[in-house]
Amino acid sequence: MAEHIEALQRLAEQFARLPGIGKKSAMRLAFSILELSDEEAENFANTIIEAKEKVHLCPVCQSLTDKDVCSVCNDISRDRSTIMVLEDTKAVSSLEKVREYRGLYHVLHGVISPMNGVTPDKLKIRELLSRIASDEVKEIIIATNPTVEGEATAMYLSKLLKPFDIKITRLAYGIPVGSDLEYADEVTLYRAIEGRRSI
Amino acid sequence: MAEHIEALQRLAEQFARLPGIGKKSAMRLAFSILELSDEEAENFANTIIEAKEKVHLCPVCQSLTDKDVCSVCNDISRDRSTIMVLEDTKAVSSLEKVREYRGLYHVLHGVISPMNGVTPDKLKIRELLSRIASDEVKEIIIATNPTVEGEATAMYLSKLLKPFDIKITRLAYGIPVGSDLEYADEVTLYRAIEGRRSI
Repeated sequence: MAEHIEALQRLAEQFARLPGIGKKSAMRLAFSILELSDEEAENFANTIIEAKEKVHLCPVCQSLTDKDVCSVCNDISRDRSTIMVLEDTKAVSSLEKVREYRGLYHVLHGVISPMNGVTPDKLKIRELLSRIASDEVKEIIIATNPTVEGEATAMYLSKLLKPFDIKITRLAYGIPVGSDLEYADEVTLYRAIEGRRSI
Repeated sequence: MAEHIEALQRLAEQFARLPGIGKKSAMRLAFSILELSDEEAENFANTIIEAKEKVHLCPVCQSLTDKDVCSVCNDISRDRSTIMVLEDTKAVSSLEKVREYRGLYHVLHGVISPMNGVTPDKLKIRELLSRIASDEVKEIIIATNPTVEGEATAMYLSKLLKPFDIKITRLAYGIPVGSDLEYADEVTLYRAIEGRRSI
């Protein structure tokens, strides 16, 4: 009968549009909203509106922020000579957790994928070039994902950046720490052997 | 850095409060909200408010509805002599999909669980008794879940309903259709043997 409760059904449909939420989960989430107090539900709704209103792209690195300039670009202690190029803001989030990297970021908002209509001009590449034009940048770390499209984008960028006199690097490939060789795929193992180091 | 985008962080916290949504999924969902258009996000927020405002308990069977009386209780073609007692409205939803049952429902909104402070008076038992007081009811099917608490609640109800001159039944136990005996637990197998039928 949940299917006949239109207001609940509409809410479930909204949840089902989000990535990774199937029909059953969507209905479960819709039910759980009804279990919130009126105040909590209103809070939830307002937080959605607020996030949409406040969060925008950082004019420098193009990652998401609710400040004028994002907290990384705004941090004077960060090394301004290095820019790590990422596919999306989620990757910035993952890298910041490592706390090892002290340079800046640049978010492309996607990878080149002609099949899906994503041509280079759809990505934040122009913005990257204009940052490089400032003489501070010494190294660009291309950290797009190790997928076919991520690789193609890395290749495209490395060619594009060649004329500039800067170091262009790519994250290391290899077996993930804590994993088991038994489960590593052949390409990863090949790259791990290829990139082996003396200890 | 998503952690430093307060508006996004607050949205992720809202999602993380919903059942079955971990921290990572919550952040992923929060990001996905930002990818909606302004209009879509507003729609989502309004749907939450609307569901909370419109959906309430059916005054007859206590299941959720956005009408005065729910669509089952309001359907004159349903058999008013049988009431199936369920733990929650989600169970009503599952049973309505079967399309086999043509009686009415009664939703308890929980099971007796003294450990969690759920005593019989916290459930919609009084409302059930007042329905039975009407002379139409001939059978009560107690369909609480086959868990320890569901069983205890079924026992409690069957004792409580004994003085009324009505048939009290419980859903059949057995091996689920399409399952493999190899994976059935012992209690289920025992119940399946106990409840065996001649063919």
